Amino acid sequence: MAVKTLERVGDKLTFINQAALPLAVEYKETDDYHAIIEAIKKLEIRGAPAIGIAAAYGIAIAVRKSGQFDLPFIKTIGEAFTDARPTAVNLFWAVRRVVDSVAAKKPTTLESTFDILWKEAAAIHEEDRAMCERIGKYGAELVKDGDTLLTHCHTGALATGGIGTALGIFHTAHAQGKKIKVYADETRPLLQGARLTAWELQQAGIDVTLICDSVAGMLMAQGKVNAVFVGADRITKNGDVANKIGTYSLAVLASAHKIPFYVAAPASTFDHQMESGSSIVIEERSPLEVTNGFGKQTAANGIAVYSPAFDVTPARLVTAIVTDEGIKYKKD
Amino acid sequence: MAVKTLERVGDKLTFINQAALPLAVEYKETDDYHAIIEAIKKLEIRGAPAIGIAAAYGIAIAVRKSGQFDLPFIKTIGEAFTDARPTAVNLFWAVRRVVDSVAAKKPTTLESTFDILWKEAAAIHEEDRAMCERIGKYGAELVKDGDTLLTHCHTGALATGGIGTALGIFHTAHAQGKKIKVYADETRPLLQGARLTAWELQQAGIDVTLICDSVAGMLMAQGKVNAVFVGADRITKNGDVANKIGTYSLAVLASAHKIPFYVAAPASTFDHQMESGSSIVIEERSPLEVTNGFGKQTAANGIAVYSPAFDVTPARLVTAIVTDEGIKYKKD
Repeated sequence: MAVKTLERVGDKLTFINQAALPLAVEYKETDDYHAIIEAIKKLEIRGAPAIGIAAAYGIAIAVRKSGQFDLPFIKTIGEAFTDARPTAVNLFWAVRRVVDSVAAKKPTTLESTFDILWKEAAAIHEEDRAMCERIGKYGAELVKDGDTLLTHCHTGALATGGIGTALGIFHTAHAQGKKIKVYADETRPLLQGARLTAWELQQAGIDVTLICDSVAGMLMAQGKVNAVFVGADRITKNGDVANKIGTYSLAVLASAHKIPFYVAAPASTFDHQMESGSSIVIEERSPLEVTNGFGKQTAANGIAVYSPAFDVTPARLVTAIVTDEGIKYKKD
Repeated sequence: MAVKTLERVGDKLTFINQAALPLAVEYKETDDYHAIIEAIKKLEIRGAPAIGIAAAYGIAIAVRKSGQFDLPFIKTIGEAFTDARPTAVNLFWAVRRVVDSVAAKKPTTLESTFDILWKEAAAIHEEDRAMCERIGKYGAELVKDGDTLLTHCHTGALATGGIGTALGIFHTAHAQGKKIKVYADETRPLLQGARLTAWELQQAGIDVTLICDSVAGMLMAQGKVNAVFVGADRITKNGDVANKIGTYSLAVLASAHKIPFYVAAPASTFDHQMESGSSIVIEERSPLEVTNGFGKQTAANGIAVYSPAFDVTPARLVTAIVTDEGIKYKKD
């Protein structure tokens, strides 16, 4: 069973402190929206869908605790949440959705306002859960009993309202009784594979082995990988996929070894405004994540670093895209 | 100019403390063979050729300082050196060579014994220096002015008696006035690229940029890499190359992007007993290098890890092998 990263308990929110993982498994329960904003800032709650859901619950919690329920107050609280992670598109979307629900229904009491907000947050949560479940179901059809699968970065339950996307497929296949083995890339520079993916699969009782990113090619050459599953940050109209740096290399390696390369993502990941991946601007991460990974300096002062956050995998290298609306862009 | 990792100063040995790099540049000078053994054990002196040269000088130093010069004593000192790094083939070879030089010449005085040992050590050092220089010269013919080159792990002056192998080619091209830019893979798990390669090239005034191993494919796709140069641990009769884990992935990526992939190594790296790379047994490294790689634990307790020390690149992916005897296995 996949862990639950967020849970409503009465009118409180319980969450796993992801910043403490994988060394400590710490659940926090709160009815204070400040604590939720802090948790988002400190990456205790992380993953685009999880942040959006937490913020939606957080706004309801702020109303209940403060006793204030006018729309300007709710909008101010919403801004406090979006300020916590200003680049998180999903966070803005979730905040706008709960604020709009109040604006549309114009409730006149504290209780009815809270009720509208809380139900809208729960709806966002439930939709995300159901979306993950559908991706899992469609994707698991691509997994055979006995398969060894490889994944990159983290695309699991910790980041979402449900079982995750690419990892959701592994959770589903495992729940269906298929015996699978997973190789998890550690995923430099931030090691989401080591810290989150390996832990989440271990918790779920799935056979997982951690590897350095540079090991994947050798495993493929030895015939030890039956399929690769990764997530996506953005998919353009022609089926090009922007995802965590290293995804493109894996796709080239999979193609060279004739191994299926699958992308799992909600249909909302498609950017219908963008024709192809060549238009995507590649954001760079801080050099310190490379030179001072986890507490210790490992490169000389003044060394230039190039650390792109993601890369673009062209559609021709993607065997199929698994979405909550079914499998798309499937190659024969 | 490439740094000198080892130098004779009178009858003392000076070496760079590689364990302190890249944060501190610390030279040590000693006339005590115990200090050299300790330095080899603590990886202050590392790199197969450098260890062999240091041990050869160390045996001479032991004779001078102790006043003992009988063959059994010299053999005992030799064993103390080989015990410091029992898997280092080059160390055994160098120790045997200096011991044999005394056994053959049967000197009768302390001074003449020291003289034989010291000259033999200097000869090993000089041969290694000249070998690196030849590799550099042959390899630099493959480098064009303005090229951007990519390398993996560390194959430089710090590890050898001269300018190194793959890095020696960069040093030579740079000295010839060719303007080159180098991308250095950080090389997980032990980060030799971040710690040693980036530092050594920076010291030499070569334009170097550090990248995570997973970035190489994207750079190739963007047309930013003109050639890849790596070293080799062993080359089999058919031209298959065993080298640091990640080399194979780079070779597949280079091939997919039609980028030349060059291996640089002394002719002595050829294993004339072994037909092909499929016979090579892949040694595994400690899981701790992956899970506790940055001085901090980054994966949960009990996570399985697969960490091969090297991989095998088949000859068909190697454009040419640059040796001190010229360029071999060149593809048209």
